[in-house]
Amino acid sequence: MNTAVNTAVNTADETAQESAAGAAGKARTGAGLTAETLAERHRQTLDDAVAAVRSRAYWSAYPESPKAYGEDGAARGRAAFESLRGGRFRALADQPGTDGWPGGEESPYGFALEIGYPHPDPEVLLPAMRAASAGWRAAGPAVRALVCLEILARLNERTMEIAHAVMHTTGQAFGMAVQAGGPHAQDRGLEAVACAFAEQTRLPARAGWSKPQGRRGALELHKEFVPVPRGIALLIGCNTFPTWNGYPGLFASLATGNPVLVKPHPRAVLPLALTVAAARETLAEAGFDPNLVALAAELPGEGLAKELALRPEVRIIDYTGSSAFGEWLERHAVQARVYTEKSGVNTVVIDSTGDYQGMLANLAFSLSLYSGQMCTTPQNLLIPRGGITTDAGPKSYEEVVADLAAAMRKLLADDARAGALLGAVVGPGVLERVAGAPALGEVALASRAVAHPEFPGATVRTPVLLKLDAAAPEAEEAYHRECFGPVAFAVAVDSAEHAVALLRRTIAEQGAMTVGGYTTSPEVERQLVEACLAECAHLSLNLTGGVYVNQTAAFSDLHGSGGNPAANAAYTDAAFVADRFRFVEIRRPA
Amino acid sequence: MNTAVNTAVNTADETAQESAAGAAGKARTGAGLTAETLAERHRQTLDDAVAAVRSRAYWSAYPESPKAYGEDGAARGRAAFESLRGGRFRALADQPGTDGWPGGEESPYGFALEIGYPHPDPEVLLPAMRAASAGWRAAGPAVRALVCLEILARLNERTMEIAHAVMHTTGQAFGMAVQAGGPHAQDRGLEAVACAFAEQTRLPARAGWSKPQGRRGALELHKEFVPVPRGIALLIGCNTFPTWNGYPGLFASLATGNPVLVKPHPRAVLPLALTVAAARETLAEAGFDPNLVALAAELPGEGLAKELALRPEVRIIDYTGSSAFGEWLERHAVQARVYTEKSGVNTVVIDSTGDYQGMLANLAFSLSLYSGQMCTTPQNLLIPRGGITTDAGPKSYEEVVADLAAAMRKLLADDARAGALLGAVVGPGVLERVAGAPALGEVALASRAVAHPEFPGATVRTPVLLKLDAAAPEAEEAYHRECFGPVAFAVAVDSAEHAVALLRRTIAEQGAMTVGGYTTSPEVERQLVEACLAECAHLSLNLTGGVYVNQTAAFSDLHGSGGNPAANAAYTDAAFVADRFRFVEIRRPA
Repeated sequence: MNTAVNTAVNTADETAQESAAGAAGKARTGAGLTAETLAERHRQTLDDAVAAVRSRAYWSAYPESPKAYGEDGAARGRAAFESLRGGRFRALADQPGTDGWPGGEESPYGFALEIGYPHPDPEVLLPAMRAASAGWRAAGPAVRALVCLEILARLNERTMEIAHAVMHTTGQAFGMAVQAGGPHAQDRGLEAVACAFAEQTRLPARAGWSKPQGRRGALELHKEFVPVPRGIALLIGCNTFPTWNGYPGLFASLATGNPVLVKPHPRAVLPLALTVAAARETLAEAGFDPNLVALAAELPGEGLAKELALRPEVRIIDYTGSSAFGEWLERHAVQARVYTEKSGVNTVVIDSTGDYQGMLANLAFSLSLYSGQMCTTPQNLLIPRGGITTDAGPKSYEEVVADLAAAMRKLLADDARAGALLGAVVGPGVLERVAGAPALGEVALASRAVAHPEFPGATVRTPVLLKLDAAAPEAEEAYHRECFGPVAFAVAVDSAEHAVALLRRTIAEQGAMTVGGYTTSPEVERQLVEACLAECAHLSLNLTGGVYVNQTAAFSDLHGSGGNPAANAAYTDAAFVADRFRFVEIRRPA
Repeated sequence: MNTAVNTAVNTADETAQESAAGAAGKARTGAGLTAETLAERHRQTLDDAVAAVRSRAYWSAYPESPKAYGEDGAARGRAAFESLRGGRFRALADQPGTDGWPGGEESPYGFALEIGYPHPDPEVLLPAMRAASAGWRAAGPAVRALVCLEILARLNERTMEIAHAVMHTTGQAFGMAVQAGGPHAQDRGLEAVACAFAEQTRLPARAGWSKPQGRRGALELHKEFVPVPRGIALLIGCNTFPTWNGYPGLFASLATGNPVLVKPHPRAVLPLALTVAAARETLAEAGFDPNLVALAAELPGEGLAKELALRPEVRIIDYTGSSAFGEWLERHAVQARVYTEKSGVNTVVIDSTGDYQGMLANLAFSLSLYSGQMCTTPQNLLIPRGGITTDAGPKSYEEVVADLAAAMRKLLADDARAGALLGAVVGPGVLERVAGAPALGEVALASRAVAHPEFPGATVRTPVLLKLDAAAPEAEEAYHRECFGPVAFAVAVDSAEHAVALLRRTIAEQGAMTVGGYTTSPEVERQLVEACLAECAHLSLNLTGGVYVNQTAAFSDLHGSGGNPAANAAYTDAAFVADRFRFVEIRRPA
């Protein structure tokens, strides 16, 4: 382990915090990545992030334009990605307790990655991670936050390499992989660090307490409040957004003092392996034990997540994936605080609009982006059977569906443009659902295979749009469950009121990450708002421009409400961070 | 339901919050307890409480001196208490779904209360509580907080009546019942309201978001963030401190918008029945549905808590009691967020002291207060076999134990004084443990029965102090588990280091609400601090005056760390309130 400094801080509160920690642990000094250096580089960013989280105004720390990463950034990133292929992921060779190097990732663009990653012996790795904990706890919240920001800065520098890793594990188009896999994920990580820092410094590090006792003089105590971690945190990664969905939990746990074991989805290991390597390298340079962050790749069919989730050392779990396994975790990993993002059924209620073309374009884009493989993509479009009113005159249900299908067809007409929007199909399950979709309803828009200009082996499909009538007995079986991937249902309903009732039932029973609504009626808007407040789901109203229902922005939008079956947590609110650590109080006579 | 106003608020943020809620629900107007009245009465108290929670300095809203409650306050309180005896608790006659009136409380002072309380049909009561929810949600966090403060003010007015109810259900001495059952409990409730209010207003009610898009102009959205409740909260009360341990969960849940169902311990119903009645009365006067708070008394042997805890409508549970049932709740009530205070084994490490007499007096008081029936009372005193250093010269293990026994004997020599400190034994389990204690070790101080001057049927016992040597194989079986009640173990250990090692193991395996330490050695102090940070337990060092390890003060001290087996939550930190509600975001084009 390298030597370094982790004592300098620059506010009175944090100095006291350090001192409290120092009384129990030890202050480090030496060369390497010093606390002064870290504060110079990142203190302003941390303060700005804390302020942004409070104001919810637009703010971002990491540029989303690919240009910001250099003219040959994409090429250099690709070269770095290629150099990793065909061997062990050597940057993690120093992880203790590695007893195998499983791999097996297949790019949705049609080739095998052929990279092996460390498989852990938990009896060796988990004790090493626990042993790493005391020094990290003693560093205090400010130093922990600054080290996390340095990790994020190094991830940002490697955005283009990570983008290729994201693209070839998730199937995201390169442009999306750059943004969602890079700066947007980094922003979500920074947001978690900011929230964790704010939460750990909400109590003063030290306080005087003086209780009057009349003539007897006051009772006087000196008190310290020290944030301490819960234990090892387990991050269970997902296939579609390994960094974007992974960073909030990873950085929230690490910033609150917990070691983090990262168990990636077996089809999307590389983006998180690069992340773990950057974290370990930074921690070591700052004088901390790199085993505070480790990777746990799994053998085929091993069920490693289940095994790790029940270990008594694991006290926090972050999970993104299927509802079945998320619910299993919530029921069985009772020794841990479990944060889940599971699946849901997202609904858009279409009642009326003052911008028909804008609505169609917005919906067409939302349904097409990343082939509908986002947890936030709309699935059910509820449209009154008698049609809707628009700025372009009344439109029948049939017209709305036909016009939406036409908008999607137009948006995806050109193969190159379609590929850049759709990306590739992430796995065989999605492909099966696309193939089986025509049996579920009347096809308004059929899926077609798109040829990728660069990767002939890529599996690219346009979305299917199906027509259903809510009055038909068999319709509910199709739309009242999640059909993950590029399959959307245009469901004819009796009225706006019927749509709202269906929306409420869908959220309550299936969960929802997002709800969309189009209406010019104050009464329907009121009903939509009331439904979303009562069932606890986020609502986007009348989006007709360049903001889409399936996109949320760090520092401003909450992702998931935590109050319906789709997720029990939100990125990133106080509840997401406040229980990842506890305060210990030490009191002495003054 | 009465009419009233719940719209007025007095900061910009909250006005916006109201407005957001009003868009979905409805603003009420009319007579009764208006929001303006509530704000006039309580806004300053709320703001002061929020400030106190942040500063952790001494602060209290409710006077703890009995004099503050009138010269004849005690007598009037007793008369009010007596008038409730021998019949149904009529103030709750209007609760829906009541299908029986079970009772059966026996005062530890030797008489039956003979009061019957409503037993619910959950199929009727729970839907009525859910139906009450929407209006309370729409009121917004400020009005909810002010209504909670009005409830607390009315409870404060009835402090003396509640004190008699607490005394004759818990066995607390009257003086303690006044303070701990009245103002101290009310302070803990207010603290929870302040934390809940602060948490719900951490996000702005409204925010503008403008993302630059270069030449294309900015993307602009208007966003609202509305706190919404989780669902019905279940409070499972305890026998010893029904109000002090009950108010934090009750008020945290209610202030965050959740209806609260109170299931008291069958031996301590009256204090919570009075509380529920005050809450219902206040809610109705303020124009809200009184079914937001209800009482659920149980039939003998019914196991009502288990039944209610698994109801899908119940989304929050607060529990104080045995570890066995607390762990059952944590394992089985997975549909709910479960906050538990269970049992633990509290340790005091005695290494050395600069005030030997002060230490002995402090410990004697701590062990005697309420017959050791506090979750925070020390159980194990770890003393080096070779003795300790003190300002009065070196003291052998034998001398320390003998001197402590003498201090306790002296403190409790006078029956009247002893009774006022000890209170009565809360139940048969405690009495059995006192009777069985001499078999567990060498008796340094025997328990004696104390005659109560006023209540000849009162069961009052002084504490037992037992000597054990940690080296003896059978000793661990005695001290390494909870022995709730007036039984303490003076355990001879090898050294301070051995004591710290035992302390760590005890916290890790048995949990601890409190840890005490006496030392003049910086090295031993460092070890104690490190042990408590590593195992997550609150530490009180060198208390020799009028502050005791088993007492915590609202707004400053945390009660429970939430990070060891004794409790999974603390009164009251952000983690205790942040997940009782969720934010729903509503966004629209600006």
